[in-house]
Amino acid sequence: MNVIPIELGERSYDIEIESDSLSRVGVSLASLGDASRVVLITDDNVEPLYGEVVSNSIVDRGLDLDVAVIPAGEESKSIEVAYELWNQLLNLKVDRRSIVVALGGGVVGDLSGFVAATYARGIRYFQVPTTLLAQVDSSVGGKTAIDLPQGKNMVGAFHQPCGVLIDPIVLQSLSVEQYRAGLGEVVKYAASLDADFFEMLENNVDSVVKRDPDILARIVARCCQIKANVVSQDERETSGLRALLNYGHTFGHALETVVGYGKLLHGYAVALGSVLAAKLAFRLASRGDERFKEIDQAWIVRQNNLISALGLPTTLQELPSIVGFEPNIAPENLVALTSTDKKAVAGKLNFVLPVGLGKSELVRDVAVEDVLAVFN
Amino acid sequence: MNVIPIELGERSYDIEIESDSLSRVGVSLASLGDASRVVLITDDNVEPLYGEVVSNSIVDRGLDLDVAVIPAGEESKSIEVAYELWNQLLNLKVDRRSIVVALGGGVVGDLSGFVAATYARGIRYFQVPTTLLAQVDSSVGGKTAIDLPQGKNMVGAFHQPCGVLIDPIVLQSLSVEQYRAGLGEVVKYAASLDADFFEMLENNVDSVVKRDPDILARIVARCCQIKANVVSQDERETSGLRALLNYGHTFGHALETVVGYGKLLHGYAVALGSVLAAKLAFRLASRGDERFKEIDQAWIVRQNNLISALGLPTTLQELPSIVGFEPNIAPENLVALTSTDKKAVAGKLNFVLPVGLGKSELVRDVAVEDVLAVFN
Repeated sequence: MNVIPIELGERSYDIEIESDSLSRVGVSLASLGDASRVVLITDDNVEPLYGEVVSNSIVDRGLDLDVAVIPAGEESKSIEVAYELWNQLLNLKVDRRSIVVALGGGVVGDLSGFVAATYARGIRYFQVPTTLLAQVDSSVGGKTAIDLPQGKNMVGAFHQPCGVLIDPIVLQSLSVEQYRAGLGEVVKYAASLDADFFEMLENNVDSVVKRDPDILARIVARCCQIKANVVSQDERETSGLRALLNYGHTFGHALETVVGYGKLLHGYAVALGSVLAAKLAFRLASRGDERFKEIDQAWIVRQNNLISALGLPTTLQELPSIVGFEPNIAPENLVALTSTDKKAVAGKLNFVLPVGLGKSELVRDVAVEDVLAVFN
Repeated sequence: MNVIPIELGERSYDIEIESDSLSRVGVSLASLGDASRVVLITDDNVEPLYGEVVSNSIVDRGLDLDVAVIPAGEESKSIEVAYELWNQLLNLKVDRRSIVVALGGGVVGDLSGFVAATYARGIRYFQVPTTLLAQVDSSVGGKTAIDLPQGKNMVGAFHQPCGVLIDPIVLQSLSVEQYRAGLGEVVKYAASLDADFFEMLENNVDSVVKRDPDILARIVARCCQIKANVVSQDERETSGLRALLNYGHTFGHALETVVGYGKLLHGYAVALGSVLAAKLAFRLASRGDERFKEIDQAWIVRQNNLISALGLPTTLQELPSIVGFEPNIAPENLVALTSTDKKAVAGKLNFVLPVGLGKSELVRDVAVEDVLAVFN
């Protein structure tokens, strides 16, 4: 088993990565101690696949178990579903010794984490991510959230899980779209924070696309290690370091909002957002901004090639064929949406932009005209 | 000005207590630094009284200000009102440099604090409490919450304010019921944690009832100091110390739930809950439990006398005349409600009980029959 510790003082926990480990969820929970009751939250896609093996592993350890199944999809990251879950926990007399287990992708993890963060002012939760996106990103680091109609992840809390158990084998069952979406976050880590990792991906595109188990285990572990390093230094995104994990996300959130939540998978939006971030850096470089001098046409092509090779879009023009309708991608509309991103401060446009391969910076107060130009 | 610091590392802040200080809210906010925008949340009782002086003080310091007014009353501590406020903050493009100011009583403070704790995963909020209950208790210590239909404060977060400014002069404008409700929390501090304070209250009942400004300033400061000491040692109620601040609250929450939120003022419920806690301790003492040997009939009478002298109820039989209808105070019903309190662990009944004058303990796993007996 590969164990990656997240060092956060009394909020420390381990990420355990091992193939065929779903049947060990109960063992991991029991080892946390002092657990009276477990509530497993999952969705109606995941429950038929993995609900039984995980449930059995929990019951086998002598823990009381209840299961709550939510509809699959981004629409469940809503205040209505959170409200249902809070009431269910209350009816089950869930208390501060209970543990919520999130079995599923980013939606299940973010929502369950938020419910656990706020029920009785905070109870423990344990992440069992079943999508690539959740395994490499959203299950680690304690960001929990639900969406508002006009703002993704706008309501949430920092609340670290008490543990994360990752079984890379489950990635074999993902749809090709869900798998590619996860790769969008994988490229994000590589392009913005880890040049060696970027080259490893370039050199193994075929194995990645074929979901070679060994490559997948390496990718998941590498991403978790990068995230662990960042989160342990900047848990609450105050120093600027953790903000770098949002490479591609400010543009990406604007695209998700304009298309409608759930209609464009997050990882696709991040991939496109990464392309747009590079275009913006290139534009600033071409105007003489020394910070971006390494971001030339070759850099852009190199990132585009990797993104394309993994089956992800690199132009806004691909959006209609992906989502099945014509979204309003007028530049003015997209710019307006970028300014409501959580990284926005006093209405200023802030972006994480590349400054080299595997290097990025949080750039404050970008001019609207430059952002508009990127969307054109 | 009386300044009481709350020592919590990077989450430290000051409680400033001074008469006629509402016009200085803007000064205190400006001194926090880095504030781009202020959203003042208040209710439709408080806004006509103090909205203008506080708003002017904020605008006078050059800060952008928006005001949100919610309906007065416990019913506003709901997910619906929180949802409205989140959307308002988003529409106002509130960001992580903005500050929410809560001007009002416990409902405004708890709700605003929860909205601030969860909007964009946490922004700053500043408390300007205008009821005695909020000044001595709910505005200090970072407990934020909203209610579920079946559970008061069941959804919330620990989120410390960035400052608290208390003007005791505003207490002169409270209704007699609101004022008495605050005294319920004052007696709680004295009976459970501070024998000298209890005697001071006994010796000054007339001045307290008449709202003598000097006595009020002393009471508010004393309660804040007690709470500051407790919170700085046990911020998240993990060691058992902070739980002592819930003296009277487990019984009290059950009474509030059975009567219906907002129909019985919290402080009245706490006063009655304190009487019931003493009865329970006496019952356990009479069965030979050495922990409660100081809780004799004289102790009970002494606490009852102070509570009565301050105009608060000491028997369940007084409830119908206070709330205007006959609530279902069947003992079985009340016991069931005490077990869903947040202090409950694995269905066990836990209570903070007195062990002497100004001394209390968290007592775990009380037998149902003993709780039933107290309600009879």
